Amino acid sequence: MKIPDRDDIAAAAGRTAGDLRRTPLWRLPGAALGLGCAEIWLKLEHNQIGGSFKARGMFNRMRSLPLPAAGVVVASGGNAGIAVATAARALGVACEVFVPEISSAAKRAALAALGARVVVHGAAYADAYAACLERQRESGALLMHAYDQPEVVAGAGTLAAEIEAEAGLPERVLVSVGGGGLVAGIAAWFEGRTVVEALEPERAPTLHAALAAGAPVDVEVGGVAADSLGARRLGTIAWDVVQRHPVASRLLADEAIRDAQRRIWRELRLAVEPAAALPLAALWSGVVVPAAHERVALVVCGANLDPATLG
Amino acid sequence: MKIPDRDDIAAAAGRTAGDLRRTPLWRLPGAALGLGCAEIWLKLEHNQIGGSFKARGMFNRMRSLPLPAAGVVVASGGNAGIAVATAARALGVACEVFVPEISSAAKRAALAALGARVVVHGAAYADAYAACLERQRESGALLMHAYDQPEVVAGAGTLAAEIEAEAGLPERVLVSVGGGGLVAGIAAWFEGRTVVEALEPERAPTLHAALAAGAPVDVEVGGVAADSLGARRLGTIAWDVVQRHPVASRLLADEAIRDAQRRIWRELRLAVEPAAALPLAALWSGVVVPAAHERVALVVCGANLDPATLG
Repeated sequence: MKIPDRDDIAAAAGRTAGDLRRTPLWRLPGAALGLGCAEIWLKLEHNQIGGSFKARGMFNRMRSLPLPAAGVVVASGGNAGIAVATAARALGVACEVFVPEISSAAKRAALAALGARVVVHGAAYADAYAACLERQRESGALLMHAYDQPEVVAGAGTLAAEIEAEAGLPERVLVSVGGGGLVAGIAAWFEGRTVVEALEPERAPTLHAALAAGAPVDVEVGGVAADSLGARRLGTIAWDVVQRHPVASRLLADEAIRDAQRRIWRELRLAVEPAAALPLAALWSGVVVPAAHERVALVVCGANLDPATLG
Repeated sequence: MKIPDRDDIAAAAGRTAGDLRRTPLWRLPGAALGLGCAEIWLKLEHNQIGGSFKARGMFNRMRSLPLPAAGVVVASGGNAGIAVATAARALGVACEVFVPEISSAAKRAALAALGARVVVHGAAYADAYAACLERQRESGALLMHAYDQPEVVAGAGTLAAEIEAEAGLPERVLVSVGGGGLVAGIAAWFEGRTVVEALEPERAPTLHAALAAGAPVDVEVGGVAADSLGARRLGTIAWDVVQRHPVASRLLADEAIRDAQRRIWRELRLAVEPAAALPLAALWSGVVVPAAHERVALVVCGANLDPATLG
């Protein structure tokens, strides 16, 4: 399969310019964060419409393909579902979201408030996904995947294009990985022109496991960031991209992730979900140690959290 | 008295460049916020060190004047106290903060965690302030005022200089007013080259009352933003500045402020205190209606809140 490239990403950026927010890139001296590198660039993507980077891919897919009368359908209890529902509402099409029984009432209510029809099905995500596929065959709705579709990956890559357009090429980019859609988009944009490094929870190590096994494999998922990063297996597109443009994976313990999330609130007044804290967790805990001259770009990927958990 | 001018503000910016964060300026089409004007520029000053714009003035004053062995002293149970304690810690000087008995245990703990000596004195802020002045005469510490000192006003003005350097001159600037230090710094920077408009809670209308009376007068203070905007009387420097560079004041009901604070979290994923919500509250409630061509700059001034209150 042809992997998404810079042309696809540039096209995605043009296609979705009227739908998405250009999120802030906050540039700070490393010392402002207690770090030894020259600069930290925080891409504040948690301020994106829908509260995460996911809207980039979803709008791009929905703007790329014909939208059937049945609208769109997706299986997701998390940020992808919110992004699909948000995009569907903006584009005026119907939206069905399949969620497993374990999904929280708060998330279901949020999806319903966006106008989505929420279908609760099965004990685990895989069950909801199977039901979603069956429903798609029946309704003819456009199937949206949380990370493993070319338009979704190219849409995520627009974030990297924005960083480069605004500030130039950083020496390193740090990004959290779940299913791999975002890291794939970023690696596809930079094409090896800078170091792209993935951060994963020890308890949801999809890329790490794929690199170890030589191919995507199922992993056990759990931990504080499972809500956003708890994909069971790396996407095939992401795998193809990292074969072409290598990305190393570093693992982080739940405690480091949670500590960083709280410190990000305390010191920077950014209210973000655990998944968004992994890049700074890696720097603060010494898992990643940039050289003194480096300008390091970090993706702050989402803020769909209960703010009461920051206290 | 000579009021702070652009030269003072430029000097302040140079003096504090190594101490402060250059906060993001987030530019969005008005439509992204449901508004009819061309652009909204959000100056994300709640991400400043210490969680509010106050650090700008405090660092500037402490960098401008000799620092006695006794350090600095201030009366404040809010953002000014946090900013003084933050600056004192950064500059390695002692800090005493006088707070009234009504101040919360959480705020006192936060000040103590920054290394300040917290002195609880009197039933109201005025009592704590009187004790602070007496202590200053005894100790010889540098007296810091929350808003009514020239260095504090000039420091606040650096925020306006940053907006203009980054994006040019907006057609309008909206800013919340308590004691008036920030609006004075902004009006002094722009010198009438753009419209500067003040937003105040109905229940803490210091500028509004001063404009009505022809001079600063005491007002009753209360309401959801009293914590940050609850000065009893407009500062004399602010009054002098608005005589030279007029600033209109618009009042907002508590409900509009609280609604906007929650909407800012829900739609923009910015966790801010009530005081920071007044500019968007004014736009969303129709209290301020910019023309279609306008680019409107808004100061998001602080985020010292319990995030649990956003739910």
